[in-house]
Amino acid sequence: MGIIKLKNAPAIECAYSVVGKREHDGPLGSKFDFFDDSDKFGMNTWEKAESEMQRMALDGALTKSKSNISDIGAIFAGDLLNQCTGSAYGLAGFDAPFFGLYGACSTCAEALILSSMLVDSHKLERAAAVCSSHNCSAERQFRFPLEYGGQRTPTAQWTVTGSAAFIIGTKDGLRPRITAVLPGIVVDKGITDISNMGAAMAPEAVDTLYRYFSDSGEAPDDFDAIVTGDLGREGSSILVEMLAKNGFDISKNHYDCGLMIYDREKQDMHAGGSGCGCSGTVLAAHFLEKLKALDHKRILFMATGAMMSPSSVLQGLAIPGIAHLIKLEMATEKGVD
Amino acid sequence: MGIIKLKNAPAIECAYSVVGKREHDGPLGSKFDFFDDSDKFGMNTWEKAESEMQRMALDGALTKSKSNISDIGAIFAGDLLNQCTGSAYGLAGFDAPFFGLYGACSTCAEALILSSMLVDSHKLERAAAVCSSHNCSAERQFRFPLEYGGQRTPTAQWTVTGSAAFIIGTKDGLRPRITAVLPGIVVDKGITDISNMGAAMAPEAVDTLYRYFSDSGEAPDDFDAIVTGDLGREGSSILVEMLAKNGFDISKNHYDCGLMIYDREKQDMHAGGSGCGCSGTVLAAHFLEKLKALDHKRILFMATGAMMSPSSVLQGLAIPGIAHLIKLEMATEKGVD
Repeated sequence: MGIIKLKNAPAIECAYSVVGKREHDGPLGSKFDFFDDSDKFGMNTWEKAESEMQRMALDGALTKSKSNISDIGAIFAGDLLNQCTGSAYGLAGFDAPFFGLYGACSTCAEALILSSMLVDSHKLERAAAVCSSHNCSAERQFRFPLEYGGQRTPTAQWTVTGSAAFIIGTKDGLRPRITAVLPGIVVDKGITDISNMGAAMAPEAVDTLYRYFSDSGEAPDDFDAIVTGDLGREGSSILVEMLAKNGFDISKNHYDCGLMIYDREKQDMHAGGSGCGCSGTVLAAHFLEKLKALDHKRILFMATGAMMSPSSVLQGLAIPGIAHLIKLEMATEKGVD
Repeated sequence: MGIIKLKNAPAIECAYSVVGKREHDGPLGSKFDFFDDSDKFGMNTWEKAESEMQRMALDGALTKSKSNISDIGAIFAGDLLNQCTGSAYGLAGFDAPFFGLYGACSTCAEALILSSMLVDSHKLERAAAVCSSHNCSAERQFRFPLEYGGQRTPTAQWTVTGSAAFIIGTKDGLRPRITAVLPGIVVDKGITDISNMGAAMAPEAVDTLYRYFSDSGEAPDDFDAIVTGDLGREGSSILVEMLAKNGFDISKNHYDCGLMIYDREKQDMHAGGSGCGCSGTVLAAHFLEKLKALDHKRILFMATGAMMSPSSVLQGLAIPGIAHLIKLEMATEKGVD
């Protein structure tokens, strides 16, 4: 299956982003809707803090869009925690149908693909896509307890503390709209270095973008920005190089949310940000605003995910990855053609 | 949002089930497509065995339906393992778009809902829904290592070793078809006993069934079977009692896959089976066959999930749950009206 065009061009009616201190201290800091300097969001565990971020993000998006939860046909949500408890606990108070997703760091795009396909086909009038990651809950689950003070390799990325919620619907007028989607395929290229997630996810990013350009007949220059979620420095350079070898030059207009969210020199974040919250918050706070301001007219947004677990890595397995893509355009309800 | 009717009545064109020794020794044993007496499926870890079951289930469904993976528009898959590695590793070899899901034991119904909605709206011509659980990978992740030999309470359920794959499409003729879906809402009723998952999931089952009967105007007697996934003995009795108090008597035609898959007296499985593989394999091997044999004409199939994690329980949180429902009817492509 290839690209799925969305003829009714569902709108991202509203987005809301919640971040922690380091993200607020970064170059995009002032653009996020809410931040908490303590990263705790009023909670006494990091996991509860992550759930609270999701609750705040969806609540914020509903308020900002003057909607009620009863207007939402379904919520599509996910996170990195075992059993996706960030979503289940964070969104348990919302009285709306819930689809739990797991796509690792690709979850934001996965949720937007499913929401927009179901809104486009009128199965849902309106849907919400929510995702999150929290540095402190991720560190102790995937790497080391914070107290251990483990040293990180230069290729390691920093899991973003952040959550984003998007309301996808059929409102009219000139808005950022999802006009096509290309769901990712799980690819396992045998990469085993868990301190280099960017390298593990780059082959899937190449696969999905290559399929997109080949099948659509569109070229990289047709877009103001080709955005990846969290390939970081390592993965981004691999993506640009591998895609160039396959005939598509994205060196001029490729942006990686993981490289944008922190000031790599001042903040010393090694290879950049990562996590479901990375692509979600940067899309919500930066790229959607660029579209709304008409600075951008057309972008590709692709979030990549590394689908391993600590157990699978200990058992010697390689890291399979996935890359889900959406095409975003400023358009009216009549679409862009 | 309430019930979503599927006007084009997508067909479950094919189903394939893979189980372990205990499931094969149970009353439905001869109905499953494949079993392995060792529960290892040729692998050297339980987690790899679970992935292998998913691979075999989807491969089996494709072979049985004489389809190729290129015919499948997308795979919807999930399991209970951390980061859903049962699905990601098991299905990484299939060249088709992949949507990872996490709905705990409700995953089978969640995958069938999303597949059928997208096939009904022609976004996908054909989709696959896959789920799994493995007793040995679940025990050591959620409870104790097998070697510990921990004693189980009488209310505890036994995670089923099994995987099921379903092909959902638009084939014509008289077939089991999904004619309506009702996605679940996350409900947290404050249940904290992780040795009594049935009790934790029963309130969500009540919530979803109550909404279904109230909104549709249909009655329990309109169905040959009202099937729950894995409430077990405890949860089933709570469901039947609570629903009766709310005006709907399902005592005559309620079946729980968790109570069907084992011989509770001979096999000593305490409160019954559980896990994504429980509802999936019993639907595939038993209820779909009942429909095809015209023994049943119309059933409700509802899988429930308990959305906690070992961490959330240790942090003192209650167990939120969810119950996703589909309506299955023997019908032609013209639907049932």
